[in-house]
Amino acid sequence: MKINVEKCARMLKQKDNILILTHAHPDGDTVGCGFALYLALKKLGKRARVICADEFQEKYLRLVDGCLDMPEFEEEFIVAVDVATENLLGDLKDKYEGKIDLCIDHHGTNTEYAKYLLLNADAAAACEIMFKVIRTLRVPIDGAIANALFIGITTDTGCFRYDSTTSNTYRAAAKLVDLGAQNGLINRVMFETKTKTYAALERLAIEGMEFFDDERICVITITQDMYRKTGSSETETEAIAPLTRQIEGVEIGLTIREKADGTCKCSVRTFQSVNAADYAANFGGGGHKQAAACKFDCSVEEAKKLLVAKASEMLGEQK
Amino acid sequence: MKINVEKCARMLKQKDNILILTHAHPDGDTVGCGFALYLALKKLGKRARVICADEFQEKYLRLVDGCLDMPEFEEEFIVAVDVATENLLGDLKDKYEGKIDLCIDHHGTNTEYAKYLLLNADAAAACEIMFKVIRTLRVPIDGAIANALFIGITTDTGCFRYDSTTSNTYRAAAKLVDLGAQNGLINRVMFETKTKTYAALERLAIEGMEFFDDERICVITITQDMYRKTGSSETETEAIAPLTRQIEGVEIGLTIREKADGTCKCSVRTFQSVNAADYAANFGGGGHKQAAACKFDCSVEEAKKLLVAKASEMLGEQK
Repeated sequence: MKINVEKCARMLKQKDNILILTHAHPDGDTVGCGFALYLALKKLGKRARVICADEFQEKYLRLVDGCLDMPEFEEEFIVAVDVATENLLGDLKDKYEGKIDLCIDHHGTNTEYAKYLLLNADAAAACEIMFKVIRTLRVPIDGAIANALFIGITTDTGCFRYDSTTSNTYRAAAKLVDLGAQNGLINRVMFETKTKTYAALERLAIEGMEFFDDERICVITITQDMYRKTGSSETETEAIAPLTRQIEGVEIGLTIREKADGTCKCSVRTFQSVNAADYAANFGGGGHKQAAACKFDCSVEEAKKLLVAKASEMLGEQK
Repeated sequence: MKINVEKCARMLKQKDNILILTHAHPDGDTVGCGFALYLALKKLGKRARVICADEFQEKYLRLVDGCLDMPEFEEEFIVAVDVATENLLGDLKDKYEGKIDLCIDHHGTNTEYAKYLLLNADAAAACEIMFKVIRTLRVPIDGAIANALFIGITTDTGCFRYDSTTSNTYRAAAKLVDLGAQNGLINRVMFETKTKTYAALERLAIEGMEFFDDERICVITITQDMYRKTGSSETETEAIAPLTRQIEGVEIGLTIREKADGTCKCSVRTFQSVNAADYAANFGGGGHKQAAACKFDCSVEEAKKLLVAKASEMLGEQK
């Protein structure tokens, strides 16, 4: 059942022992949402905990004070944040499938799996919605909460760059900076700093770029061998996918990452001509208009063939 | 004489036949300021023209409607926008030195060369100030003016990324988007799209990166030979300097570009530890806290020695 911000806030006020689920391979938006809600609930005197199938990167914990040593308790209310489908819960899916009370999300593709859903597909980040929820809860927003929310907004918009960024996004950023968000530091940590190992991986990725269909399709392949050569790892690959969009004339950018078990995952980036979520849906994936993802049980090479053929087909339909 | 926004607007209201000077090697902020002021003055029924020692890149003209075919006239009032010193006028300096009536700028290093100066060193971009001037002129802001101002703000902040970005910057962006600025398109054109030739140049630049002082100093050298090999040119090098800041641990990033006559120019990028404007001042240059530039009459190799030695010295003083 879809609900609005006021109803969502009322519901959270009435509950205690709240478990907050983030999606697997956690990004800034799901972590920012989870941490901000956790800190807000704590200020209301409630017990809460944020969990994830995968580990939170150290950079998030460093920028958001007070999110270590969350309490243990028997959960009475389960909230999923920025989680479009239960599949995205990763290893937490088995335990929590069908049991989620509330979902706060901005994905138009949300499958409405939760009992209550606060959805705004026009929000550039789930953190934009969470900001409203926390203000409606009348929790005083401190620097840590402001940082958490700013992280979600800036990462999901590629630092206020993508088309999804609206005047509301910039306005939310302005308010969060006034409330103490360390925008310069956050943007440096999230976007500017490359580790030496990542810089080496990125160089290999760029060297291996392939182009198809009059260079309207760009493919980057990241293999396990490339991780070995550079000392990098999958946790450092977030910034690779946007590289495909950067070359003049590219309309579909595909980044295929080989997993340790030989299967692979593809990140899709598109411009106006093709809807990335629709494209990824062909392979059982999903996402947004310009950024989506899907998984394959086959090798990188086989996945590439399927992906390029479908991309070609969809571009052909545009002509 | 320093003046405020109201006085600046009153002055512009009283004048006609206004010549607007931008700085040489024009960037988004000087062009955005110039074009926005030109369009605003036109709406007030005045004659105005924007000039520059160098050509405006086509991308600016494409994003800001109505800035082709500016009228010719005998100038009665001369305004410089985003020009910290008369030296930055390039080849226009000889003609206009000592004759500039009004300067609108955000550089703390402004030499107060103009008769009247509207300066706000806390503004992340001169376009933030120009936005206030145009609103005070009570000119209705249309999409073209909004685009011009948004271009200046987004380019001078590295897409809202640098420390210089304040809540006022985000707030200005929000208002400009509401007024019709095409933020997604502008950010794509300014930041995301790399030409094939630029992508090749960037690859060579990254391959040739040198590190000094425990990798706290990063140097990129761009030679004429690299332009020849890649088909790129100096007009495409804007995005190179920020690359030096992106490597973990780098505190001073230096990008030395060889000119056709064998002399060179250095772009400086720093973090907290060193003030870039102070550093560049050692070589007769200037700029902002985290971004500055200076020129050399010697070869790239000689300049590199001088630059690295001074960077080392300034980092040593921090210890």
